[in-house]
Amino acid sequence: MDTLRFDKGNGLLPAIVQDHRTNEVLMVAYINETAWHKTLETGKAHFWSRSRGKLWLKGETSGHVQIVKDVLVDCDADTVIYKVEQLGGAACHKGYRSCFFRRVEDGTFKVKDELVFDPKEVYKG
Amino acid sequence: MDTLRFDKGNGLLPAIVQDHRTNEVLMVAYINETAWHKTLETGKAHFWSRSRGKLWLKGETSGHVQIVKDVLVDCDADTVIYKVEQLGGAACHKGYRSCFFRRVEDGTFKVKDELVFDPKEVYKG
Repeated sequence: MDTLRFDKGNGLLPAIVQDHRTNEVLMVAYINETAWHKTLETGKAHFWSRSRGKLWLKGETSGHVQIVKDVLVDCDADTVIYKVEQLGGAACHKGYRSCFFRRVEDGTFKVKDELVFDPKEVYKG
Repeated sequence: MDTLRFDKGNGLLPAIVQDHRTNEVLMVAYINETAWHKTLETGKAHFWSRSRGKLWLKGETSGHVQIVKDVLVDCDADTVIYKVEQLGGAACHKGYRSCFFRRVEDGTFKVKDELVFDPKEVYKG
């Protein structure tokens, strides 16, 4: 059983989520050891929510679960890639397919993508 | 002039390096504000080396510089993507094209890629 170097990130390591077909990067979030094992066991992407301070099944509110097709580990064992099928067509809570919907142009951040859903309709109440 | 949220990462944010043609993720490294501005100014990927504690022009030793073609920013402005042309054909100091040359299989990390160069030949002395 090989292990990740959670010690290098004070218990949290970045996980890059990539569309398994197009290789588009959908989002980056953080995993602790529990989220890592939950992801491997269930085949659904789990993270540690830094803002809410709790284990987070991606899609638990929106239904936009990420089905993990492949898991890659980097040379230092301190970053992982989840290659996923993104249910619902969008990973970003702002309604874009990818959280990386902005491009740097002349020092400003310009929106380059189109909305896939209306966040007000998905995250109600 | 839009700014990144370096405060959210205690001064350091992850930068994902992606091949600008194939979208393969080549590596993840960290940027501080100086590395960020150097990258935008020079068009070559700069990082903050956490192990060496200094500004790092990727490729300064190996010659495997990354020419930045596009820069993306995520919804929280705390992660960036550099889309690059990787000179020398390999990003990983271990001689692989990508640092993510291993896949998780039954709990172990299995090498899935082939070596592009011999690290002993590139990093001499």
